[in-house]
Amino acid sequence: MKKCIVLFSGGIDSTTSLYWALKRFERVHSLTFDYGQRHRIEISMAQRLARKLGIPQKTLQIDLKQIGGSSLTDTKIPLPEYEKLEEMEEGPPPTYVPFRNGIFLALAAGWAEVEGIKDIICGFNIIDSPHYPDTRKQFVEAMEEAINQGTTASLNEQKMRILAPFVKMKKSQIIKEGLSLGADYSYSVSCYSGEEIPCQKCSSCFLRQKAWEEVGQRDPLILRLEKEGKI
Amino acid sequence: MKKCIVLFSGGIDSTTSLYWALKRFERVHSLTFDYGQRHRIEISMAQRLARKLGIPQKTLQIDLKQIGGSSLTDTKIPLPEYEKLEEMEEGPPPTYVPFRNGIFLALAAGWAEVEGIKDIICGFNIIDSPHYPDTRKQFVEAMEEAINQGTTASLNEQKMRILAPFVKMKKSQIIKEGLSLGADYSYSVSCYSGEEIPCQKCSSCFLRQKAWEEVGQRDPLILRLEKEGKI
Repeated sequence: MKKCIVLFSGGIDSTTSLYWALKRFERVHSLTFDYGQRHRIEISMAQRLARKLGIPQKTLQIDLKQIGGSSLTDTKIPLPEYEKLEEMEEGPPPTYVPFRNGIFLALAAGWAEVEGIKDIICGFNIIDSPHYPDTRKQFVEAMEEAINQGTTASLNEQKMRILAPFVKMKKSQIIKEGLSLGADYSYSVSCYSGEEIPCQKCSSCFLRQKAWEEVGQRDPLILRLEKEGKI
Repeated sequence: MKKCIVLFSGGIDSTTSLYWALKRFERVHSLTFDYGQRHRIEISMAQRLARKLGIPQKTLQIDLKQIGGSSLTDTKIPLPEYEKLEEMEEGPPPTYVPFRNGIFLALAAGWAEVEGIKDIICGFNIIDSPHYPDTRKQFVEAMEEAINQGTTASLNEQKMRILAPFVKMKKSQIIKEGLSLGADYSYSVSCYSGEEIPCQKCSSCFLRQKAWEEVGQRDPLILRLEKEGKI
């Protein structure tokens, strides 16, 4: 049976990955990280969608507050507003969590090895969010090689793969891909502030809003919140 | 100031790494993982030596019981005895923790990035313990590349390095290296069973005993336990 693990944070990109994987694999395992993120509401939203889709869901605890160095894991480091982000120096924004995707992929690889799974799917992309070193194609390829050298895959003919199908897509293209696959974005949250209702100020809200405008549709999350009388 | 992180489990190899690093770096940070290991006594022993040496010590929590698949993290999987290990099939022994060193190095890299540290030292070696895919030179090189691609090192001229100075040494050679550096092994524990007093049955005890015989000295841990009347 063709099995895979999807790194599923509950945001737009990984929600699309989940639907992308469901189209291509017979058994899709959702893997969510409870990593001490400010916006931990994404965890319950991710679990909710996995439950709705009837797919196995695992939440791994790894407290990256122990490392810090990011406004997502250290509340003393303020969240950047999008406009201010533009003025910042080169290099990753304060929302970059040091080597987060390396840590997540390493844990996913360990779990994949135990489960006998060869493919790990992630929604990394770079066009709309440059300066994150751990979402680039070069990183994905290097990490795949490290996993193939450091696990029992090094002894097997069948290697492990990290698939990042949206790595060169804009966020609006990713949404269009998801919509064509029937993706439900109404419980997908992106806001860094940690509330279900988007703050509309942080860089993540800004990018999401811009992407839905480019798609030419209203954000299903906003539509749901309006319907529920929450906004 | 030349700074480094040493992956310090408290065993023979990483104790030697610590002394190796102290000779070469101005500031050595000890990093120990509390990963749900059966033999968690190694954590307090590692902390004890770091304290004695007066070096900064960090213990990171990452519960690999969440992943399982190893007799070190899942007590339902029995520890192999050395003789039986010889009879086993090719491939890693039950004490292999899936991609453990990939997970540890990924976390170390994230922490190194926050601290502005470029060098990570580890005591990996393969001669006496083959079949562990995540202690091989090829893995170390691939993981170094993944870290350099997935962190801000990708933007800098100065890259990160993973140094594994003992990767091609036998355990007895590693001990000799440590003794020449003045290493104190009297609180270094290796036994997988989780007691301070070695079980003398598990594969780790066997390898340690054999190494000290090759060195031609009595194990300082045994000498200390005898002196304290514990054995």
